[in-house]
Amino acid sequence: VSIKKTLEKHYREMQDIEFTIQDGKLWMLQTRTAKRTGAAAIKIAIDMFNKDLISEANVVKKITPSHIEEVMHPSFNPSLEKLAVPITSGLPAGPGCAIGQAVFCPETAEEWSKNGKQIILIREETSPEDIHGMHASNGIITTRGGMTSHAALVARGWGKCCVVGCNKININLKYREATIENQKIKEGDWLSVNGSTGKIYTDKIELIENNLGSNKYFLNLIKILKDNQNMGVRANADNKNDAVMAKNLGAKGIGLCRTEHMFFNPDRIKEMRKMIIFKNSPKIRKQAIMNLLPHQKNDFYEILKSMSPYPVTIRLLDPPLHEFLPQELKQIQLLSDETGVSVKEIKSIMDSLHENNPMLGHRGCRLGVSYPEITSMQSNAILEATADLILENIPVSPEIMIPLVGSVEEFKNQQNIIKKCALKIEKERNIKLNYKIGTMIELPRACLIADEIAKHADFFSFGTNDLTQTTFGFSRDDVSGLLNDYIKNNIISKDPFQTVDVLGVGELIKIAVKKARTVNSKIKIGICGEHGGDPDSINFFYEMGLDYVSCSPFRIPISVLTTSKFI
Amino acid sequence: VSIKKTLEKHYREMQDIEFTIQDGKLWMLQTRTAKRTGAAAIKIAIDMFNKDLISEANVVKKITPSHIEEVMHPSFNPSLEKLAVPITSGLPAGPGCAIGQAVFCPETAEEWSKNGKQIILIREETSPEDIHGMHASNGIITTRGGMTSHAALVARGWGKCCVVGCNKININLKYREATIENQKIKEGDWLSVNGSTGKIYTDKIELIENNLGSNKYFLNLIKILKDNQNMGVRANADNKNDAVMAKNLGAKGIGLCRTEHMFFNPDRIKEMRKMIIFKNSPKIRKQAIMNLLPHQKNDFYEILKSMSPYPVTIRLLDPPLHEFLPQELKQIQLLSDETGVSVKEIKSIMDSLHENNPMLGHRGCRLGVSYPEITSMQSNAILEATADLILENIPVSPEIMIPLVGSVEEFKNQQNIIKKCALKIEKERNIKLNYKIGTMIELPRACLIADEIAKHADFFSFGTNDLTQTTFGFSRDDVSGLLNDYIKNNIISKDPFQTVDVLGVGELIKIAVKKARTVNSKIKIGICGEHGGDPDSINFFYEMGLDYVSCSPFRIPISVLTTSKFI
Repeated sequence: VSIKKTLEKHYREMQDIEFTIQDGKLWMLQTRTAKRTGAAAIKIAIDMFNKDLISEANVVKKITPSHIEEVMHPSFNPSLEKLAVPITSGLPAGPGCAIGQAVFCPETAEEWSKNGKQIILIREETSPEDIHGMHASNGIITTRGGMTSHAALVARGWGKCCVVGCNKININLKYREATIENQKIKEGDWLSVNGSTGKIYTDKIELIENNLGSNKYFLNLIKILKDNQNMGVRANADNKNDAVMAKNLGAKGIGLCRTEHMFFNPDRIKEMRKMIIFKNSPKIRKQAIMNLLPHQKNDFYEILKSMSPYPVTIRLLDPPLHEFLPQELKQIQLLSDETGVSVKEIKSIMDSLHENNPMLGHRGCRLGVSYPEITSMQSNAILEATADLILENIPVSPEIMIPLVGSVEEFKNQQNIIKKCALKIEKERNIKLNYKIGTMIELPRACLIADEIAKHADFFSFGTNDLTQTTFGFSRDDVSGLLNDYIKNNIISKDPFQTVDVLGVGELIKIAVKKARTVNSKIKIGICGEHGGDPDSINFFYEMGLDYVSCSPFRIPISVLTTSKFI
Repeated sequence: VSIKKTLEKHYREMQDIEFTIQDGKLWMLQTRTAKRTGAAAIKIAIDMFNKDLISEANVVKKITPSHIEEVMHPSFNPSLEKLAVPITSGLPAGPGCAIGQAVFCPETAEEWSKNGKQIILIREETSPEDIHGMHASNGIITTRGGMTSHAALVARGWGKCCVVGCNKININLKYREATIENQKIKEGDWLSVNGSTGKIYTDKIELIENNLGSNKYFLNLIKILKDNQNMGVRANADNKNDAVMAKNLGAKGIGLCRTEHMFFNPDRIKEMRKMIIFKNSPKIRKQAIMNLLPHQKNDFYEILKSMSPYPVTIRLLDPPLHEFLPQELKQIQLLSDETGVSVKEIKSIMDSLHENNPMLGHRGCRLGVSYPEITSMQSNAILEATADLILENIPVSPEIMIPLVGSVEEFKNQQNIIKKCALKIEKERNIKLNYKIGTMIELPRACLIADEIAKHADFFSFGTNDLTQTTFGFSRDDVSGLLNDYIKNNIISKDPFQTVDVLGVGELIKIAVKKARTVNSKIKIGICGEHGGDPDSINFFYEMGLDYVSCSPFRIPISVLTTSKFI
């Protein structure tokens, strides 16, 4: 006991000790800091803190991002995983492990899940229409796409196990099977997926579940981290549940509330599609969009309220219109029945919306310029919700974010629409709205003219996903195969969509921050790309003097930990 | 006569004079510089120069780009065009006017042209497979695409009338007709197309042809301009005919020799397709590519020889592989017969090459990294041709250009392959090859790390088309509709694909030139985007200290004129 106490006081750390007893005498041979699991590391640090053996700052020091990652997601029994041989691998897009039966379509995934089955959904790519099937699955595999593909983004947002870009898997939907070289995976076959390493197995490996909510050590750690943060951490969240979870995990605000998923509810997508079909008839088009106002107002009411008193950055509609159109003939027929527009005409409208490079297409604020009623409806919804909440004495601060700005004229065009809405509501309801208008900085041009934009904007948020795409000229949906060749040839060492590229993207960020702060010293600057959850990138953003990082709810503890390590 | 002489000596310019004779006395009322056609302007200037009334510098001053444009292309009789009402309009992608009968497929265009008909080819978009039909046509119309779409680039290269992005035209291939709102254009209907204004008419407007080769005034002007240039002008040309024409029009070198069109010859495309089909079997793949070596060697021999003694910048293969694949089942079947690979398998390979955003995909030097034998074969072809020409005592200086470089590692990877080829040839043939290795600067990241790249490169050439795409996040193939909305809303005043965007793209160019010259004062820097033929842009490039601009052969006289105006 006295040795234990001595070691505890001296090393303030769990030790592996080698000793021997020779001729009745105790010989200490060596001692070194002991390895431990994430759960053990957190328990030890909190125990030592509670015993006054170490300070809060020491707790922060002792915990690493991988400790946190380990306790946040289910993992495989490591000694059993060691024995298994992966059949293939892909990019580790959603950390954690999962086992389940292979399924190739989202409808089956939903159906089987209702019958209590565990599911691994395998798709070429996912789209917003797959969302229910993805939600019903325990793990997701895609054969295409990179770290910021739809599947990857959605999975990380949910904290779900996901491996993307497994380009050796060939799916045959007709026969409900997939082949990997000479091996077959049939619907119903068991798979084990490690979303932290990207490895996929046909064995059924034992899963160790974690339960954060009842892990008092983890909750204690979060409290300590929150009190020691030296940089803001916000969440990317677009619904009440995610917002509440993010707040519990340490987020002090929402840095990116995407609004596109809100449009996929069956009631709403109908209006959106009507708007697109009648895009050349401003009156009908506007009416369709205005029908979405009450829904959107309620969306924003919920999310602002659940994040109160912290700020919520809401991004106006971003994706190109064709993403909202139906893909299957059955749905096109339905749309035709509802609108009275012939299937042939709908198809011709769909054709006219086709883009060769949708990533560089008619999206972001470009939509808002062409269809100002979208900006107007969304601004109205945000500010009406804000007014309601103010009258209920609930402190809120909405930040309206204009996406994909590349020129000051675009920003001013959209800002005017928002300001008009605000003035009208303030007058009608005799209220002072407390809101900000800012923009995503996600194009090289926006960085280069950041001073021009900053003269008019209240805040900037770097969209480092898109900024990485345009700076490198890499399509994040197509890049996985190329990145493999590049890593093999030592051309790239790290995926720039995971860890920010300091030389290129970083240089643009540096230029933009400097230009913006020169003309507007009070401008709030954050970052809401995937890099907001990556420790190396967070270090860079801190050096650049950003005010906050924003990341998926499940990455919040890691970001909070990283920002607590700054001195 | 004495008044005429006085005016000539005083004004040194043709005058419109108002006078009256009152009571037998001549009263001069007013005089001002007279308006004239392009042909007249050139004749007057040359005549005055020959009479020693004005200097060479004054000739340069008196001629404007629109004078030159007017004489270089056929135009409509202006008084007749004034009376006609356009049925629709698009982007003026290839200056000059044309009349012809509407045709909707390239095969028909070729056939009708052989029968002596004049053709206007109308397509949604064009692809390299349409090239023969495009060549056979007098004018080209596309319903999609922007100023740098395939149709626009090809047409300008040929000096052919072309209007793109006519999005009001709906083509119905099955019925061989098109509709514009309520009007129909049937196959064989006459159209008049003004490629300088973008207007399209159903009337048959009288065409005024020009014949440059026999226009001694024009040739005289070119000579004067060439002697007065203050900045290099090169041509974008990829065959002997274009090279010779460009040289006659004043080009002193080729700034961009694209190599992709060389692969579309029926003999060659076969090998290229074989390479793609066997992309996972390095041996077969390499053999297929090496079969192209003698063809490519001959291509480069011809072009280097015809441009001697001036430098020729040859760009290594740039487009993504899927552009070389057959589109029609008939051709896929043929490829299957030739290779023994099943149609199903070919289709699956085609699927695997699909990219969501091909513009940001697996192309440029990324191909060269994944398939080093392409770089190797092309370098061998260039340098073997160079060796032959040196031994024939023909002075040549090839410049091998690596496309789409975004990191110094990519550049060094490709540079190594080229240097290895050169060393081998120098040893085998006991010769000293005089060649340069450089890169296109066409990604924001390349501009930001220009110093790193410049340490290893002999030259840079700004690819301002792609640089504009990535800096703005605009897809040049999709942008036409958006640009219309933007111009209407005063967000943009000029198409950034026509006149360089000084604030954004220009800033990146400035950064890159400064960084590059700091570490490598001798580096040669040019620009080979479409902007090389635009006077405003050329002025900017001159200010930036670039060594030369390169443009389509038919833009050469305009660029030579612009660079002669610098003092």
